[in-house]
Amino acid sequence: MEYAKPLARLVGEFEKLPGIGPKSAQRLAFHVLRMSEENVQALATALIDVKQHIKLCPVCFNYTDQDICALCSDAKRDRTLLCVVAEPRDAVAIEKTNEYRGVYHVLGGVISPMDGVGPEMLRIRELVARISEQEIKEVVLATNPTIEGDTTSMYIAGLLKPLGVKVTRIAHGMPVGGDMDYADQATLIQAFQWRREI
Amino acid sequence: MEYAKPLARLVGEFEKLPGIGPKSAQRLAFHVLRMSEENVQALATALIDVKQHIKLCPVCFNYTDQDICALCSDAKRDRTLLCVVAEPRDAVAIEKTNEYRGVYHVLGGVISPMDGVGPEMLRIRELVARISEQEIKEVVLATNPTIEGDTTSMYIAGLLKPLGVKVTRIAHGMPVGGDMDYADQATLIQAFQWRREI
Repeated sequence: MEYAKPLARLVGEFEKLPGIGPKSAQRLAFHVLRMSEENVQALATALIDVKQHIKLCPVCFNYTDQDICALCSDAKRDRTLLCVVAEPRDAVAIEKTNEYRGVYHVLGGVISPMDGVGPEMLRIRELVARISEQEIKEVVLATNPTIEGDTTSMYIAGLLKPLGVKVTRIAHGMPVGGDMDYADQATLIQAFQWRREI
Repeated sequence: MEYAKPLARLVGEFEKLPGIGPKSAQRLAFHVLRMSEENVQALATALIDVKQHIKLCPVCFNYTDQDICALCSDAKRDRTLLCVVAEPRDAVAIEKTNEYRGVYHVLGGVISPMDGVGPEMLRIRELVARISEQEIKEVVLATNPTIEGDTTSMYIAGLLKPLGVKVTRIAHGMPVGGDMDYADQATLIQAFQWRREI
């Protein structure tokens, strides 16, 4: 039995999404058949809308549906503190902590020779321009604690330090609630290297 | 930071889908932002199309975009052999084996007092009518080997046997490639009860 064509097409479209295998795609398509017409319409409209109305903030390169994103235009944020992240989702994760009061700069990726991503393909030029033009006291490099993330941070630090700005890197170490016994060696080594007096 | 509204709306719509948590919904929405406009349009169209063009086959109650589904109108299928399944996806699973050559009857669920699903809410009346009207030699009950699935099969068997039709139930036992040592007790008990001479 073949699926009816419209159903097969929807399963195919779902399968193209990340993390959705053939089985999940089929389950989602069957779910859509059981959804109300209004709810399906809402999902379809949300898809189109996001593509049509979301663009990049020209200041921080985060996603926004405004001329300048809500965060960059928020007068209560500290514009002298700039956090550099690889992707918009990383800024979302940091914002959820409700601790950080500065602004962001989204690189749009990390340096990864394996994937053919060089520094010139990231928004590093824009970052340097921003630091030259605006009064920024500290740049916090918050790329992932991976080889690519570390490399990207080191590269940016090398560019920024001559500009006289303070450059910091988020700490690497044991995750809170983690178990020493289960921690990987790389994390433990970093936890020792980043240790500080208490 | 709030998401830009169209983005928040899409994340919300994705979260309503089964098996998609907040994290996956966010990842999917960010993925949509990176998709080409054509691909997003294709997904949105597939969603709407499936809702508009897929209906239930009036014979077997499987999903179809035809008047009568491809399987029911396939002259090569054995119409005297009828397999009863709970959901369309179960028929898909059976079809994938390429072994079954009969036709199907989709109940649209299983009897589940806990969820308020009684026999009258399933397509059992239609099943009985089909067996009275058509020349069917054997009905294979292929509901899941769960309490609800077994109950539904027992209930249907009770209704059909007086009609003089042969009623069978798919075997319960050890899955192929399974490990005795890891099998749950219920499966092992069934595997013993369903044993046969070889």
